[in-house]
Amino acid sequence: MKIAISQINPRIADFEYNFKQIKDFTEKAVKENCDLIIFPELALCGYMPEDIIFQHHFQKQTEEYLERVKNLSKGISILLGFVEKNKGKGKPFYNVVGLFTEGKLKEIYRKRLLPNYDVFNEKRYFEEGKENLIFELNGKKIGITICEDGWNTEFSPAYGLYPLDPVYETVNEGCDIILNIAASPFYYKKVYLREKMFSSIAQKYNKPLIFINQAGGIDGIIFDGDSCVFDKDGKIIKKAKKFDKDFFIWDTESENGDYYPVEGDEEELIFNALVIGIRDFISKIGAKRVHLGLSGGIDSALVAVLAKFALGEENVTGIMLPSPYSSKSSIEDSIKLAKNIGIKLEEIPITPFFEVLKSELTQKFSGLKDITEQNIQARLRGLILMAYSNNTGSILLNTGNKSELAVGYATIYGDMCGALSVLGDLYKTRVYSLAKWINKKFGEIIPENIIRKAPSAELKPGQKDQDSLPPYSTLDLILENYIENCLSPKEIVEKTGIDIETVNFVINMVHRSEFKRKQAAPVIKLTSKAFVSGFRFPITSNIKIKGDL
Amino acid sequence: MKIAISQINPRIADFEYNFKQIKDFTEKAVKENCDLIIFPELALCGYMPEDIIFQHHFQKQTEEYLERVKNLSKGISILLGFVEKNKGKGKPFYNVVGLFTEGKLKEIYRKRLLPNYDVFNEKRYFEEGKENLIFELNGKKIGITICEDGWNTEFSPAYGLYPLDPVYETVNEGCDIILNIAASPFYYKKVYLREKMFSSIAQKYNKPLIFINQAGGIDGIIFDGDSCVFDKDGKIIKKAKKFDKDFFIWDTESENGDYYPVEGDEEELIFNALVIGIRDFISKIGAKRVHLGLSGGIDSALVAVLAKFALGEENVTGIMLPSPYSSKSSIEDSIKLAKNIGIKLEEIPITPFFEVLKSELTQKFSGLKDITEQNIQARLRGLILMAYSNNTGSILLNTGNKSELAVGYATIYGDMCGALSVLGDLYKTRVYSLAKWINKKFGEIIPENIIRKAPSAELKPGQKDQDSLPPYSTLDLILENYIENCLSPKEIVEKTGIDIETVNFVINMVHRSEFKRKQAAPVIKLTSKAFVSGFRFPITSNIKIKGDL
Repeated sequence: MKIAISQINPRIADFEYNFKQIKDFTEKAVKENCDLIIFPELALCGYMPEDIIFQHHFQKQTEEYLERVKNLSKGISILLGFVEKNKGKGKPFYNVVGLFTEGKLKEIYRKRLLPNYDVFNEKRYFEEGKENLIFELNGKKIGITICEDGWNTEFSPAYGLYPLDPVYETVNEGCDIILNIAASPFYYKKVYLREKMFSSIAQKYNKPLIFINQAGGIDGIIFDGDSCVFDKDGKIIKKAKKFDKDFFIWDTESENGDYYPVEGDEEELIFNALVIGIRDFISKIGAKRVHLGLSGGIDSALVAVLAKFALGEENVTGIMLPSPYSSKSSIEDSIKLAKNIGIKLEEIPITPFFEVLKSELTQKFSGLKDITEQNIQARLRGLILMAYSNNTGSILLNTGNKSELAVGYATIYGDMCGALSVLGDLYKTRVYSLAKWINKKFGEIIPENIIRKAPSAELKPGQKDQDSLPPYSTLDLILENYIENCLSPKEIVEKTGIDIETVNFVINMVHRSEFKRKQAAPVIKLTSKAFVSGFRFPITSNIKIKGDL
Repeated sequence: MKIAISQINPRIADFEYNFKQIKDFTEKAVKENCDLIIFPELALCGYMPEDIIFQHHFQKQTEEYLERVKNLSKGISILLGFVEKNKGKGKPFYNVVGLFTEGKLKEIYRKRLLPNYDVFNEKRYFEEGKENLIFELNGKKIGITICEDGWNTEFSPAYGLYPLDPVYETVNEGCDIILNIAASPFYYKKVYLREKMFSSIAQKYNKPLIFINQAGGIDGIIFDGDSCVFDKDGKIIKKAKKFDKDFFIWDTESENGDYYPVEGDEEELIFNALVIGIRDFISKIGAKRVHLGLSGGIDSALVAVLAKFALGEENVTGIMLPSPYSSKSSIEDSIKLAKNIGIKLEEIPITPFFEVLKSELTQKFSGLKDITEQNIQARLRGLILMAYSNNTGSILLNTGNKSELAVGYATIYGDMCGALSVLGDLYKTRVYSLAKWINKKFGEIIPENIIRKAPSAELKPGQKDQDSLPPYSTLDLILENYIENCLSPKEIVEKTGIDIETVNFVINMVHRSEFKRKQAAPVIKLTSKAFVSGFRFPITSNIKIKGDL
C-alpha cells in the first residue's frame, strides 16, 4: 500500500489557502497511485485557530470546505483534521481527524488527550473523544492518534498527565500501523526528544509508526515539520523536510530502512527556526518587507542577518538612529554589517528631536530624571521606526533578547516596539553563540567588533549593561533556573553557587517587569517556556522575594 | 451556629498581605463567638495566581502560611482555599478548600469542575477533584462546592459543560447547608444572573445556601463581592458589600429573611466596577497617582472622572497635549472639566516637536503620508505621557474605548499607551450613556459640549470619526453581535438589517487589528467577553471575509 505524507504549511483559519495545498497534494498522490494521503492535525483550518473557532463563519466555512474534501476523496482515501461541532454535552467542539473515502466522510476519530499547558489551550475549545479508531485499508489495520494522544507513554516528558494511553489502547485493539497526526510546536530541545520518543514507541510495540507534523510558523510558534516513518525497530526510514512544506510517499511493503539522526547542532536548529519564524510571520500577514533599528549592538546585528536569510537582503532595511551618546564605532559597525549582508541602510539621527524634547520637557517638568532622558531616546527611536512603517508598509522587527525581556531592561513603547520579537526567547549568552555560529558558517558577516565589545544601551555617556545588571553569564543562569525550571531562590543558590542577593535581585526584576511583557510583541518560541505564549504572571501581585525561600 | 462570611480583597500571590486579612477577620469572628469562618476561593494566594503557581517559592510559601492558618484555628473552624500539590497522576495541582479545626488541617475538598473558558484557564494548573465533602459542625451538615462546581445546574448558562453536578450530589448525600466558595469575575450582566441562579438552587433543594466571593480588582478582572446567604426559599437574608472587602455573621437559627434585590441599574454597576478596577490596580502595584491625556473628547473626560472617584482628585493629573489640529473648544472643555472635578491640569503642546519631526522626516522619507503624520502626533503624546510617568512615578491610564480597540481605530504605542485600559470593554455608545448617568448623578461635571460634539481624533483638519467608521450606533451593534454573540456576517445582517458591505467592512477591521490588541494594556472587564483577558484571535491568519457567510 502506498501512503502519501503531506506536510502542509497552513495559514490559520484561511480555508481557501489551506484547501489549495490539500487539493494539490491530493492530486499528486492520486497521480502517484497512492491509496491514502494524510495531513497534519486540524489541517483544514491550520493549528491553532484560537477563539476564531467560536465564530459562526468559521463553522460555516468548515462545513463548506468539508464538502470539497469529500469530492477530492473519489480516487483516494484522505485523513484530514478539522474542528467538529459537539452536539452533545461538554465543550462546544472536538479536535478530529476524518477519514474520507469514495466521496464520503466515513469515519471520525476524536482526539482523546487535550493538552492545556505551555502554548496549548485545547480545553478552552474541545471535549475529549472517548473511543479509539482503527480502520482497515488494503488489509492493513491503521490506528489513529492525534498529537498529545501519543505523549502519555513512558517515553514522554508529559507521562502521567492523563489517566489513559491511546497508543497502548490502539495497539492492544490490534492495529498494524500506528499513526500520530500532529501539530507539534517547536523548541530546540524537543526535536531530539520527540524523535527518540516515537522511535521507542515503534520499537516497544514492534509496529511501524507514522508521525506527521504541520510545517511553518504562525504567531511566533513554529511547527518544524520533520514528518517521518519509523519502521518496527524504531528506525526512521522516511523523513520530510524540516520546517518547510513537504510531501513523500511510503510504501508499506518496504518496512526496513536506515537510521536518520536529527541533523545539525542546536545553533543550526535555532537559526533555521528563526529564519522560518520571520519568513512565515511576514508572509502570512500579507507583507514583504521589514526594517529594524541598527544600534551597532549584537542583537540588532543578529536580527538583520536572520531577516536577510528569511526574506532576502532586498527586503530588509537597517535604520541607524544615533543619539549624542552613540559611539562612533556603533555607526561604523552598523555600516560594515549592512555592507556585509547587502541590506539597505538609512541614518536618521535622533539628536535634533531629542534636544528639543529635552529642553522643553526639562522646563515643563522642572528637570528631567536620568531614566526619563534615557526612555525619551528609546521612544523617539520607536516613533521613527513606526513612522517608517506607516510610510512604507515595511514591518518593524523587534530586536530585544530574552534576558532583557525577563528583567525589564527595555523601554516599553520604545525598543519594545515591533510586530514580532525575533530574539525574545533567546538569552543573551545564546545570542552570542548564535552570532559566532553564523560567522563560522557564512564567513565573518557580523563584524568581530560587534561580538567583542561590552554590551551597552548607549542611552547615557559611558553606559554599560553591566552597570545595572549582573554579567550575562550569571544573569542567564539565574533566569533559566527561575523561568524554565521554576526553582526557588534558595534552590538556585544551591545549584549555581551564585549569592542570594543577586538571585533575589534578578527574580524581583522578573516579577516587577511583567507589565512590560504583557504588552510585548509576539515572541518566536525557541525554548520550552517562551514569554508571551507560554508565560503568564500576574501584574498586580507586587510580590517581593525578600527572604531565603 | 454562628458562621462568619469573610469577603477579603487579596493581592495575588502576596501571602503576607492576604494572611493579615485572614488573621484579622478570624480574630474578629472568634471575638464574636463564631463557630466557623469562611474565606473565598484560593484566599491564601488570591485568585488567580496564574503561572506563578509553578514557581517553587510559591509552593514553599503556601506550606509556610498553612502552618500559620492551622495556628489560627484553635478557637474556631476555618474554611480556606489554597493551591494543593497533586502527588498523584494528572495536572500538578488541585484547587482546594481546607477545613482547619483545633490547630489541624482536618479535611480537604478539591474543586471538581474546572472552568477553562473566557478568563478562566484552570485546566492549565489543576486536576479535578473526585469526591464531595460534607462535614458536620454543631449538628449541621455542610456541603462544600467551589465556584464552578455550582454552575452546572439547569439554572446556569454553563449548564451542560460538565458531566456531573456537585451541588446535586452533595444535597443527595444529605447536606443541610450548601456552600459555594467562589472567586467569581464580574461582568455587569452576571450580577443578576448569578443571584437568580443561586436563589433557584436554594429553592429547588429547599436548603439554605451561602455564596462567598472574593472582592476587588486584579489585572483588569474585578471580583464584585456580594457574598450572601439565601434561605431555603431562595431569599437573600444576609449580604456583604459589593466590590469591597466585608464581613458578616449569619446565625443558622435565623433561617428566614427578606428579599434583597440587586441594587442600582447597569450604569451604576459599571461605574462602581470601573472605580474599584482603577483603585485596586493602582494600589496593588504599589502606586498612588495617575495621569492621562485630556483631549477634550468624551473618553478621556470619563476616565478623568472615574480616576477622581477611584483615587481622589489630588492624585489625578490631566495633561492636555494640543497639536495644530486641536480645536479651541477641546482646550476649553478640558479646562472646564478639570475645574469641575478638581484635578490638576497641565498643558504641553506637541506642536514644536511635531513640527521638527514632520520637517525632518518629510525630507528623510521623501514625503510623509497622511497616516504617518497622524500617528506621529499620537505617538508623541504617548512619549510625553510616559516621560511624565518616568519623571514623577505617576501611572498612565489608557483612555481608549472598546469600539476603537475592536476596529483598530487607535495608534499602537500612541494613544494605546498606558498601564490599564479603563474603557477597553465599554463600547462608545455605552461611554456616552455612562457619561450622561454621571452627570445626572453628580451634577453636570462632564461639560455638556464634550457629550454633544461629534467625536474626532483631531489628527488632521476637520477630521471626524465618522469619516472612517460607520456611526457608532451601527458600529457597536455589529461589534456586539460579532464579538459577544459570534454571529456570522449574514446572521448579523438578518438580525440588524445593516447592509452586508458595512458588516464585512467592520469584521475585517476587527480581524486586521488583532496585532494591536495583542500589545494592548490590561482591560477592565465589564462584559461577558473582554479584549485581552477573554478574546484571542490569531494574528497571522489574514482572513478576509468576502462573501455572504
